[in-house]
Amino acid sequence: MVTQSGKPVPDAARRSEKSRRAIYEAALALVAEAGYPKTTIEGIAARAGVGKQTIYRWWGSKADVLLEAFLDLSEQAAEAAGQVPYAIPDTGDLAADLKAVLRATVDELLDPRFEAPSRALAAEGLVNEQLAREFVAKLLEPQLQLYVDRLRSAQDAGDVRADVDPRIALELFVSPLAQRWLQHTGPISYEYTDTVVDYALHGLAPRS
Amino acid sequence: MVTQSGKPVPDAARRSEKSRRAIYEAALALVAEAGYPKTTIEGIAARAGVGKQTIYRWWGSKADVLLEAFLDLSEQAAEAAGQVPYAIPDTGDLAADLKAVLRATVDELLDPRFEAPSRALAAEGLVNEQLAREFVAKLLEPQLQLYVDRLRSAQDAGDVRADVDPRIALELFVSPLAQRWLQHTGPISYEYTDTVVDYALHGLAPRS
Repeated sequence: MVTQSGKPVPDAARRSEKSRRAIYEAALALVAEAGYPKTTIEGIAARAGVGKQTIYRWWGSKADVLLEAFLDLSEQAAEAAGQVPYAIPDTGDLAADLKAVLRATVDELLDPRFEAPSRALAAEGLVNEQLAREFVAKLLEPQLQLYVDRLRSAQDAGDVRADVDPRIALELFVSPLAQRWLQHTGPISYEYTDTVVDYALHGLAPRS
Repeated sequence: MVTQSGKPVPDAARRSEKSRRAIYEAALALVAEAGYPKTTIEGIAARAGVGKQTIYRWWGSKADVLLEAFLDLSEQAAEAAGQVPYAIPDTGDLAADLKAVLRATVDELLDPRFEAPSRALAAEGLVNEQLAREFVAKLLEPQLQLYVDRLRSAQDAGDVRADVDPRIALELFVSPLAQRWLQHTGPISYEYTDTVVDYALHGLAPRS
């Protein structure tokens, strides 16, 4: 293992990295198996094979551990899909760019490693507003802001109307996929998200 | 109390109606307070002041009780809002009709009687696919089909493009509100749902 600067990583750092990763995996596995309320710092420590104090040294609460474990999981999924983490491409073709990102999101939502812990946390967020707001602020909203940036650039290019609020507009193509996943209201596929993007950009009413 | 035919209701029917309502209220209160997994037929019966057998005579499972309790709650909310239950108006003005129904949905989502049990059930549905599918089939999908009908009539009138799939199209204005409510990703208001309807009908791209 080498750092970005090319220097070898000292043993202590390597051990820390290994512990950090074991803690993430234990936290995600436990919340998937037992649910959020029954997941504890003690349980995460036991499963990760580290002392409780190791966790408390790095994180203030189990919500913090899970938040970082999710950020890490999302970054891994994005890297596996060949994407730069947390970037929406800007090729000049807005429809194509949005479709590519939503297809990657479909892959992530259908990935079994992602699904069980995500569902357990979303379920807790439904009845625990404080947790939900923390996850929105630290995880969801930063991702949504990337769509805001891409839509603003599309407004500059004349591809999106100037009077459209990008923060609301993005929900027309992001929320349908989210609701199908959250509530099992319909199947999820590339064809589906492609269609949603086309409808959102061109509207349901005829163009005269 | 009289029946629709105008005849007085016999005492036994009146007692049954009173029990049924007590069971609905107990079921909704328990799932809101304790969550779905800890809600039992025994608990509902005790809180409603009826025998367990009364519940088993009418319903096969706690999921069935909750499903009917929710249908009843939605009908009451629609009646309180002066709507015919489960109908989307067709005044010939598609935007106005959709905005009216979504404003009523905003009221329902913000109604405290509705919010706690709905959240508890949606949370369970996230991790319990069988329950989710039952609720979608019996409760959510019939409501969404009303939008399908309204969009088909708009297609006949030339207000929605003929090549649009109504079952997907409705998600452009239904899902953003659903996601904000489910994930606390943003505030809910009439102004918000009105904006979403306008964006969905006219699209984000400029009309040339």
